[in-house]
Amino acid sequence: MTSAFQPFQPPRRVLLGPGPSEVPPLVLQALARPTIGHLDPEFLRLMDETRAMLRQAFGTTNALTVPMSGTGSAGMETAIVNLVEPGDKVLIGIHGVFGVRMAEVARRAGAEVREVKAAWGTPLDADLLRKEALDFGPKLIGVVHAETSTGVLLDLAPVRAICDEVGALLLADMVTSLGGLEVRVDAIPVDVAYSGTQKCLSCPPGLAPVTLSPRAEAVLVARKRPVQSWYLDLSLIREYWGESRVYHHTAPINQLYGLHEALRLVLDEGLVAREARHRKVAAMLAAGLEAMGFELLVAPEHRLPPLTTVKVPDGVDEAKVRKTMLDHYGVEIGGGLGPLKGKVWRIGLMGHAANASNVAIVVGALSASLRALGGGPVCDLIKAHTAMAPFTT
Amino acid sequence: MTSAFQPFQPPRRVLLGPGPSEVPPLVLQALARPTIGHLDPEFLRLMDETRAMLRQAFGTTNALTVPMSGTGSAGMETAIVNLVEPGDKVLIGIHGVFGVRMAEVARRAGAEVREVKAAWGTPLDADLLRKEALDFGPKLIGVVHAETSTGVLLDLAPVRAICDEVGALLLADMVTSLGGLEVRVDAIPVDVAYSGTQKCLSCPPGLAPVTLSPRAEAVLVARKRPVQSWYLDLSLIREYWGESRVYHHTAPINQLYGLHEALRLVLDEGLVAREARHRKVAAMLAAGLEAMGFELLVAPEHRLPPLTTVKVPDGVDEAKVRKTMLDHYGVEIGGGLGPLKGKVWRIGLMGHAANASNVAIVVGALSASLRALGGGPVCDLIKAHTAMAPFTT
Repeated sequence: MTSAFQPFQPPRRVLLGPGPSEVPPLVLQALARPTIGHLDPEFLRLMDETRAMLRQAFGTTNALTVPMSGTGSAGMETAIVNLVEPGDKVLIGIHGVFGVRMAEVARRAGAEVREVKAAWGTPLDADLLRKEALDFGPKLIGVVHAETSTGVLLDLAPVRAICDEVGALLLADMVTSLGGLEVRVDAIPVDVAYSGTQKCLSCPPGLAPVTLSPRAEAVLVARKRPVQSWYLDLSLIREYWGESRVYHHTAPINQLYGLHEALRLVLDEGLVAREARHRKVAAMLAAGLEAMGFELLVAPEHRLPPLTTVKVPDGVDEAKVRKTMLDHYGVEIGGGLGPLKGKVWRIGLMGHAANASNVAIVVGALSASLRALGGGPVCDLIKAHTAMAPFTT
Repeated sequence: MTSAFQPFQPPRRVLLGPGPSEVPPLVLQALARPTIGHLDPEFLRLMDETRAMLRQAFGTTNALTVPMSGTGSAGMETAIVNLVEPGDKVLIGIHGVFGVRMAEVARRAGAEVREVKAAWGTPLDADLLRKEALDFGPKLIGVVHAETSTGVLLDLAPVRAICDEVGALLLADMVTSLGGLEVRVDAIPVDVAYSGTQKCLSCPPGLAPVTLSPRAEAVLVARKRPVQSWYLDLSLIREYWGESRVYHHTAPINQLYGLHEALRLVLDEGLVAREARHRKVAAMLAAGLEAMGFELLVAPEHRLPPLTTVKVPDGVDEAKVRKTMLDHYGVEIGGGLGPLKGKVWRIGLMGHAANASNVAIVVGALSASLRALGGGPVCDLIKAHTAMAPFTT
């Protein structure tokens, strides 16, 4: 046997990419508390409190609101495999990677999938979606509320109206909106939503909050066949989270300590204040970047405050810029995915990290890295800093 | 909005149930290190080191060895959904809850499932398994190496011989053996094995180590249909863990910090020494319990060292005993599952917690709780302590 490795010491980083985002010290400390049993009465109390806080963050009273034991993608799969049976018609709106993935997951669940597409960087066209929905008659319409690959925030109200018109369930990906914006699940209402912990909740990745409306829960209960995934089967998991506490799988105890603490911090700040903070710093960033000469991918009215997509100037090797930012400033931002690969940077100002200090850091590191590499545009930092003024945005 | 809850402070516990087991301070501290990105070069290095150590713990050189982003049950589902296609014949050996679950997961994956059963508390009958295998001609035979619900350790060599005879893949559940015993995946060889982190690896629950032999990987690559679970699709996940580092889902960063540190501690001790320690303290516990007058469920030659099942004496309300142990001593042990509900206690001495001190604690707390409740047998502690002597076992 070879010897073991040295203990791992993560380097100092400023996480301003599409997630994971910076985790506040109180949440990191919570992760390190001693593990207790998944049926310990004190752990059951933690579960109840966590669920109560999750409901507040989602803006819902849905009974079936739980953090799934996996990352955000497990939340997506949970939503689909629990509500879709083989042969069900599912209409997916695609305006980025996560819509593509949602359609793929639905196909793997045996659904008959139809797709409605929009250019990446724009939201779905509601008229087109309505036309397809009327023609197709889907059981479920799935859309991405906060498209992490493009930085587009989708207005769910028109999608809800279409669902009502055709009698479909509304599924919404809230991975990059929950905890950063008021997502108002009951007010819209959304039938099934999922998220991840590593974006605006400011918790490490590893849990996927999911919520189902009473109507969606009724669809689950009335299924003809078992859910294809035993691990993600909400008809079993709701028993463990319910009165009976029937063992399903061993809950990720310490991750849940972290989520409990992260939700406390979210609700202590308040969702209204939190959304206002995300909007303010996103506006500062946009103003700074635009004053520097950068173009943003998304039109102002469709921008997702926690995630800003910036077009890479012609002739710039975007990966080299990111590497320079990471190696020399410890600043992580994201590159583009799919058709946007090499064409955009993705800058996240999420949760705990959505602050003016990080706007200054990312603008400075981006500008200096571009200069260091040469060949890129010379950006006007004086102009940028003037535009970023915290008192005027 | 109601206000948030208070920070969660877990009570002091001694975790001597079927898992989660006690997590050592170094692992808890590792969990609390600052989160970094899932594509950060330093995180990729951590992944490589973790995989190298996992291979050592499994006793394998299998290329496809990864910790899945879910708990042990996600590991089970990963093993099955990646290797089984609808209509495939799967033979499952059942001698406890986890065999039952394995058969259920295989059915949900569309397999034609045949079951071979043994009484809970005994291992599978290899002759019976062989007879069914010859008659059925399965693509895969699944068994539970370490049955956490009964405390039985299954000898895998005869099962391997049967697999070779009928040309089947061998799947083994190693949830409660990995990190506590030398599991020798390549020596047997096992084609696909999975485990959890919260047993003998002494890490919090949340990750599921999985390993596939080259033959199993070839079966995965030759699939006709996509894996039904996108989240657990190893053909995609191996790309993220491979040279190309293609993004699949955001890895649970801090959990992986914990696993890295836990594996370091396992390998620093060494697998041989670790197995010897588990065997020694399990023998001490068995000697103590039997001297006290308790009967163990499993015959000595089939006992799983990390988990001991004790028969509940007639007339004793086992749940009340566990509650007394938890409330007054902070000691958690487990109850029985399925047909063993109310009939056995499950005492885990796993990983970091497999020590003589915990033997003394659990014997003392069990004895005193029984006396406090009255009605149970009066156990002879002097005799027990004599039997438990650390120098003679």
